[in-house]
Amino acid sequence: MSPMSYTAVELIETKRDGGKLPDDGIEWLIRAYTDGSVTDYQMSAMAMAIYFNGLDVDELTAWTRAMLHSGDVLDFSHIEAAKVDKHSTGGVGDKISIPLAPLVASCGVAIPMMSGRGLGHTGGTLDKLETIPGFFTGLDPDRFGEILESTGLVLAGQSETLVPADRKLYGLRDATATVPSIPLISSSIMSKKLAEGLNGLVLDVKTGAGAFMKELDDSRRLAGTMVGIGNSYGVRTIALITDMSQPLGNEVGNANEMAESIATLRGEGPADITELTFALGEVMLELAGIDGGRELLQSKVDSGEALEKLKEVATAQDGDPSVIDDPSKLPAAPNEDTVTAHESGYVTGCDALIVGMTATRLGAGRERKEDDIDPGVGITLHKKIGDEVQAGDNLATVRYSRSDLWERHRERLAKAWTIGPQDVASPDLIIERID
Amino acid sequence: MSPMSYTAVELIETKRDGGKLPDDGIEWLIRAYTDGSVTDYQMSAMAMAIYFNGLDVDELTAWTRAMLHSGDVLDFSHIEAAKVDKHSTGGVGDKISIPLAPLVASCGVAIPMMSGRGLGHTGGTLDKLETIPGFFTGLDPDRFGEILESTGLVLAGQSETLVPADRKLYGLRDATATVPSIPLISSSIMSKKLAEGLNGLVLDVKTGAGAFMKELDDSRRLAGTMVGIGNSYGVRTIALITDMSQPLGNEVGNANEMAESIATLRGEGPADITELTFALGEVMLELAGIDGGRELLQSKVDSGEALEKLKEVATAQDGDPSVIDDPSKLPAAPNEDTVTAHESGYVTGCDALIVGMTATRLGAGRERKEDDIDPGVGITLHKKIGDEVQAGDNLATVRYSRSDLWERHRERLAKAWTIGPQDVASPDLIIERID
Repeated sequence: MSPMSYTAVELIETKRDGGKLPDDGIEWLIRAYTDGSVTDYQMSAMAMAIYFNGLDVDELTAWTRAMLHSGDVLDFSHIEAAKVDKHSTGGVGDKISIPLAPLVASCGVAIPMMSGRGLGHTGGTLDKLETIPGFFTGLDPDRFGEILESTGLVLAGQSETLVPADRKLYGLRDATATVPSIPLISSSIMSKKLAEGLNGLVLDVKTGAGAFMKELDDSRRLAGTMVGIGNSYGVRTIALITDMSQPLGNEVGNANEMAESIATLRGEGPADITELTFALGEVMLELAGIDGGRELLQSKVDSGEALEKLKEVATAQDGDPSVIDDPSKLPAAPNEDTVTAHESGYVTGCDALIVGMTATRLGAGRERKEDDIDPGVGITLHKKIGDEVQAGDNLATVRYSRSDLWERHRERLAKAWTIGPQDVASPDLIIERID
Repeated sequence: MSPMSYTAVELIETKRDGGKLPDDGIEWLIRAYTDGSVTDYQMSAMAMAIYFNGLDVDELTAWTRAMLHSGDVLDFSHIEAAKVDKHSTGGVGDKISIPLAPLVASCGVAIPMMSGRGLGHTGGTLDKLETIPGFFTGLDPDRFGEILESTGLVLAGQSETLVPADRKLYGLRDATATVPSIPLISSSIMSKKLAEGLNGLVLDVKTGAGAFMKELDDSRRLAGTMVGIGNSYGVRTIALITDMSQPLGNEVGNANEMAESIATLRGEGPADITELTFALGEVMLELAGIDGGRELLQSKVDSGEALEKLKEVATAQDGDPSVIDDPSKLPAAPNEDTVTAHESGYVTGCDALIVGMTATRLGAGRERKEDDIDPGVGITLHKKIGDEVQAGDNLATVRYSRSDLWERHRERLAKAWTIGPQDVASPDLIIERID
């Protein structure tokens, strides 16, 4: 059957009725959607039909391929080092890319990392990087490749020429309640990552109250689906399922998270950030075929080479590296206040969603794509799950610019902590590996 | 909760997740869709979510009310006679409105009938009426009311000022594979009928291979849903579920069907057309509170008053009534051919879909809304289910304009008939009454 013989209506009908979309039908649909001959209203009906009836492995492979080939695909085969990237499904306080990428690059892995901006309750790597004055993330594909070649590491936004179908479809899904579909999430993430010309990819799939996937089974299905797609395209893909029942690390907000990232590269980061950075780093070394594991990573922290790599990439991307030596030069909001405990006991919960949304509402993030952010707004958590507290203890320090916003949200933030009489174990950070 | 506090995304999410849409949320959605602030792509996602999760009785009532109030609602309370209309879910050869409306109007019922045009394999009442030279169906609401008042009968297209939300949503559903949803069909039909200012409504819900609803259970659900909506709005509504396993009557095509309708009003129609016209007519008299039933109807045929009423309405709507006295003046395509039986036996099936699609392809109907029709194209069926045939007997006579189209479709038409060795009973025409 020639691809020209399809219509959007018949393909939507097929999916609506639980049938299987033919490979060339999917190819036709994504191409026609990208060029505008299939309309947004047809694609949103298709997305909703997929929400209900899913895509099987064959359909998902074809869908991802069609998305991938809707635009340019990068080729770094002239760079000898193994190209490995990491993607996280996102969570509150998740700044892992910033210590991880320089650390692993300092071990000889080439890292062409494309990241996003914060939206809703989660932050974005680009916003955090831009707290370094001058740091430029809007690289074109040529400059992206040059910096990767010279530095072994590049940290930028998604190029507009890559996966235009995803750009269009993502915005549509956001406006039509069709975001939470495992095949649509998987093909969106994987088509973007496959366009980066990688040899290997590690996925950090979050699970728990602060994650997009709140149930472990859903996180497992998402991880398994993405690992399957990556491997079927010859990009060795491994996923770690990790905890997002409370914020990651002690810092939330852009400048705060950059400072915590720098501390981690100095070997002075909090235990959970350090642990997750090392765990993902080990997988990236494995994917690159580099021996040494955790000892190698530790040696790069100890020698200062990991931190040096961050300064190197900041310099290459027009950022001021002196901020990395002196994080007190990072932006800071003018006002500070604290949230204190009303009772004594043990922290049994620290709601990542509340902490993340409070930071966003104070200006650290965006509620709509077009919003500006306030890079100096942030929340420092002093108590997390398993910590003992006395009534009156500081639970968090909040830096803010607008007092009216803080007054409106302070009470809600205080409710993020639940305190009980019994000591509880801090949750396991790394729950499962899927490959 | 103020209606202003809704967003399309949250309402789509609610329906997607199987929740119940609040009444004022539905009202907000339909109003915002009509004025364009809710987009087509959001409404198509909602329509697909409704396809999967349905609407309960409360939601359906609110949805229909919101559609109804998206535009003008006619008020004929100054006309003393009971206002009753009939709607058919459509089938091949279904010209019942044309004999039925004048027959029932001649008994003193006021009939403000708004009809549609043919699309796909089914014909449309307006196209058939327009085979009478000059017959004008594009009446504005004022003229529509005047003719109803003076003639007791008016036969026109849907006014553009009535139910604009349905006009928009129907086109969208057609392009997004969201037509076959019982709540969306029901609210579309009923909002249009409720806008006509009726006291009573009879629904002819078709079932079988040539109908939109092929399964009796689906037809029952559709009929029950529409009857429920009508009654909840104080418009007494009764449905007959009727057979559409083969074409209705012996004529398919616009001029052909007009001629068969005129014959029926003369008492010379085929048994099935006559039976269904009388059965629906009896229900309309019942809804109007007029005694006399079938005997009254028969007397109006016998006296010629029923036929006279058709001439009267044709004259009122600028049509040439002389055609009704001499149907040989109706348009006729220039060429004629026959389809003959290849074997002897009994007709066990006559596929309405094949007959309807052949007529459409030859020019009697439209494949797209913007197509023109050829009013003189038609198919006369000589054999239907239960008839005995000898090899070589004529099964049908076809009138066509374009020989190339006929050559392309003649073989397919011949396949409409299945002939077996055993006599079979002709299917029951009227299957069930729902009120």
